Amino acid sequence: MLETLDLSASLDKEAFKQQKEPVQRELSRVQRQAWKAGLGVLVLFEGWEFSGKVPCARFLAGPLDPRGYKVEVLYPPTRQENRYPFAYRYWCRLPPRQVIGLWVRSWYYHLLDPQVHKKASALEHRTAVEEICQTESMLSNENYLIVKFWLEIDKKEQRRRRREFLEGKRKRFRVGPDDPEQHKHHKRFRQAAEAMLAGTDTAFAPWHLIPANDERFTQIAVATTLIRRIDEALARRGATADTAVTNGTAGTAVTHDPPAAVEEKVPDLLEQTRSVLQSVDMNQKLDDEEYAGRLRQAQANLADLQYRCFDQRRPVVLGFEGWDAAGKGGVIKRLTVELDPRHFTVHSIAAPRGEEAEHPYLWRFWKRVPPEGHWAIFDRTWYGRVLVERVEGFAKERDWRRAYGEIRDFETALSENGFILLKFWLHLSPEEQLRRFHERQEVQYKNYKITPEDWRNREKWPQYEQAVEELVRRTSLPFAPWVVVPANDKNFARVMVLETIVKHVEEDLKRKRSRLRKRF
Amino acid sequence: MLETLDLSASLDKEAFKQQKEPVQRELSRVQRQAWKAGLGVLVLFEGWEFSGKVPCARFLAGPLDPRGYKVEVLYPPTRQENRYPFAYRYWCRLPPRQVIGLWVRSWYYHLLDPQVHKKASALEHRTAVEEICQTESMLSNENYLIVKFWLEIDKKEQRRRRREFLEGKRKRFRVGPDDPEQHKHHKRFRQAAEAMLAGTDTAFAPWHLIPANDERFTQIAVATTLIRRIDEALARRGATADTAVTNGTAGTAVTHDPPAAVEEKVPDLLEQTRSVLQSVDMNQKLDDEEYAGRLRQAQANLADLQYRCFDQRRPVVLGFEGWDAAGKGGVIKRLTVELDPRHFTVHSIAAPRGEEAEHPYLWRFWKRVPPEGHWAIFDRTWYGRVLVERVEGFAKERDWRRAYGEIRDFETALSENGFILLKFWLHLSPEEQLRRFHERQEVQYKNYKITPEDWRNREKWPQYEQAVEELVRRTSLPFAPWVVVPANDKNFARVMVLETIVKHVEEDLKRKRSRLRKRF
Repeated sequence: MLETLDLSASLDKEAFKQQKEPVQRELSRVQRQAWKAGLGVLVLFEGWEFSGKVPCARFLAGPLDPRGYKVEVLYPPTRQENRYPFAYRYWCRLPPRQVIGLWVRSWYYHLLDPQVHKKASALEHRTAVEEICQTESMLSNENYLIVKFWLEIDKKEQRRRRREFLEGKRKRFRVGPDDPEQHKHHKRFRQAAEAMLAGTDTAFAPWHLIPANDERFTQIAVATTLIRRIDEALARRGATADTAVTNGTAGTAVTHDPPAAVEEKVPDLLEQTRSVLQSVDMNQKLDDEEYAGRLRQAQANLADLQYRCFDQRRPVVLGFEGWDAAGKGGVIKRLTVELDPRHFTVHSIAAPRGEEAEHPYLWRFWKRVPPEGHWAIFDRTWYGRVLVERVEGFAKERDWRRAYGEIRDFETALSENGFILLKFWLHLSPEEQLRRFHERQEVQYKNYKITPEDWRNREKWPQYEQAVEELVRRTSLPFAPWVVVPANDKNFARVMVLETIVKHVEEDLKRKRSRLRKRF
Repeated sequence: MLETLDLSASLDKEAFKQQKEPVQRELSRVQRQAWKAGLGVLVLFEGWEFSGKVPCARFLAGPLDPRGYKVEVLYPPTRQENRYPFAYRYWCRLPPRQVIGLWVRSWYYHLLDPQVHKKASALEHRTAVEEICQTESMLSNENYLIVKFWLEIDKKEQRRRRREFLEGKRKRFRVGPDDPEQHKHHKRFRQAAEAMLAGTDTAFAPWHLIPANDERFTQIAVATTLIRRIDEALARRGATADTAVTNGTAGTAVTHDPPAAVEEKVPDLLEQTRSVLQSVDMNQKLDDEEYAGRLRQAQANLADLQYRCFDQRRPVVLGFEGWDAAGKGGVIKRLTVELDPRHFTVHSIAAPRGEEAEHPYLWRFWKRVPPEGHWAIFDRTWYGRVLVERVEGFAKERDWRRAYGEIRDFETALSENGFILLKFWLHLSPEEQLRRFHERQEVQYKNYKITPEDWRNREKWPQYEQAVEELVRRTSLPFAPWVVVPANDKNFARVMVLETIVKHVEEDLKRKRSRLRKRF
């Protein structure tokens, strides 16, 4: 998930100055509204050492009424604290609903640190994930909004800041002897962070991943995200009156301010970054000769790999998503042409009909899970839930929000049973799509490919872009990554997809088939 | 949880005949209404071998429209099925929302059988619990109602039925060579069942424990429970229109029948049984002489145990609940009189006020968790959530329903960290309560103990009785059992409580202090 971040995101002094004041005004407003509505707010800052967690908390606290917030800096549990159940020290610090909690570190100590230092067994880790999710779920049910930030900086920036601290330009005392020197264990820490984020990114308490190389950007991004989350929570409470506090006096006399006047709104910096799609170089091309050679080679490799998968009983699941006219069909054609047709199936997924619509959305995909050694290729996938169903409003926000976790569970279960997974987003520029649409309308034998729906979808390009951004961020897993393919040039796209599959499957075949559990 | 069942529950032929017809009519009605509303229904039967799972499924299916149900009998996963993720074979069998699924056995195979045969590690077990809860949660979110029955029979009845089968009076072929011969592993199976039930009894998919020694009782109890659950689900859907199916056509054209006309209602057999409280022999007494002797002895033992707990750093949590005037104060007085006052605290819990009301309900109890070696004695407890808050409507059903699981999580976390737990319900007959109320009104120095609220509570006796029944059933855990104390005779109650504590603490001290996880 972290590899999707654009760490170059930054804000110059002028822009920061301009945005600071309205952001602070808004922070102050949402604090008042949350207070009145009896909505508890708990903000958790996690991230690398020196990623700026404390400055962020200070920035947020600045404009707040000091009676209405409390900053807690959590250190590793003391020996005394470790004698209680892990949740104890957090319960003791839990602010009442009228006080916004700004926590620098949190219960994620118990997931991250023992993992990095290899002191936790798989069982302990799993138990901790479960207990944390239970706690966060209970708090949401008890009318707390949980806003979790992960501040991501790169190795270089971390080293720079550490040096700056040590050289006493800032406060040297902050770099204690316990400083875990993460830059020495960078890779291990990053893996642990990825696992932690994927395991605890829930619909009721999602993670916000913040590119934090630039402090100004970080602070504004964190603040605008917090404002948006509180506004959303207040709107939900307004919509369903029955979510009022049931216990105690806090919620009984709620008098709602109108939710954020539109002109007051500050732009959400994170919403604006389209790093996943924007970072793709759309100009990559392949001439026909190189294309032909590399394609042939990749196809030969694929045929070979298919037999190796069959031999080793490893099933493969390939998912294709992308803009209309991005060329999914063409890619899949080149992918399958040299494969043994006995051992693969292409599933073309359209809107659910008949029996499919009468089952949960994942049902038709579970039914299509391939048997041992077979390849299943999906032309459109279960991600429809968080793409078309989200954008077109076929699924309610509540429903597509929980889908990220459900899909991660689905793919995790497959992976733990030896499945090899890979997901592609075929990316087009809007101009190239337009060109292809016109071509399809004009060339008769391509005519069947273009429908009025394609034109309608095209109008919702920005919404789709936002949905793609979020789905890639929330569901790109180490064992089932998303690959964004620049597809303006068909040659390039096809070769890239085929070669990526070859590489990924080859690597995954080396991985030990770790079946977490034998059932009987 | 299972020990709370009254296995003598039965229904004679005449009563069965009388109830059968209205029950069948109601089954047919709820089927039609669920169909119309697009509500999926999945009924899972688990329980001992020969506990009558198939006859129950047949009884339910009888009056249903055969186009609208499907019986699945699940056997242990085949080798082929085991090559897929565990959920695969269940997804393949999942009926569409218009078809009621009646499943004899289910995904609980994966929790129960490997546990009994000791093939599952703690990690595998925990993972399976988690995956099952995830699946059931997703299905509920996807508009399926999950109704889970555990059919409980005793060893004797199981042996009888097995013999009957083998002797060919019924179908001998049903006793296959794979028959696990549970009566030989009765204890182990029961422990596994307890752990399974406690781990998967959620607000969205609670377990219904059915005393199944008598087939007629079982069938009517199962049917009436199912009817009630479907009616409740339909009522909820009616109340919040936004729970309609979001995906597909099934729910789009919902036209609600009025929820169950009142005169049609069939009595819920399970709701009527008050086995936990009724099975207590309220006539037990102790004369003053024996009382004095045993009390002194127990108090001496307690003082000794307190030092042993301190020495071994084991904290103790004792919870007291009971009817008004049942004598909690008197018991606690006798309990503490010989204890070292440095090492125990009595917490008297009233309605949450001030800061307490501004936090989640468990907060004030987490804050009072005792340190190592100390005893915490609670005069009224966190169970207020499912007692007074439930009965008086201070908490919404949705909120107190989830509390059973939250409380189990809380107590489990304590136990896993070495805490010793015990919970008492001091039980009175209504007549004895009335006598004591009058006494309190008449005797001047007892006057302060009686308030108008006590009289109001008394009027809600049946509702409280029902709440007690459910809380004992859902939260009596092997390591934190509920003890129902007949308190009509104060002598008896006091001695019983003290002696029970002595016994439980002594036993628990022998248990290895199993800290599931070291955090750092």
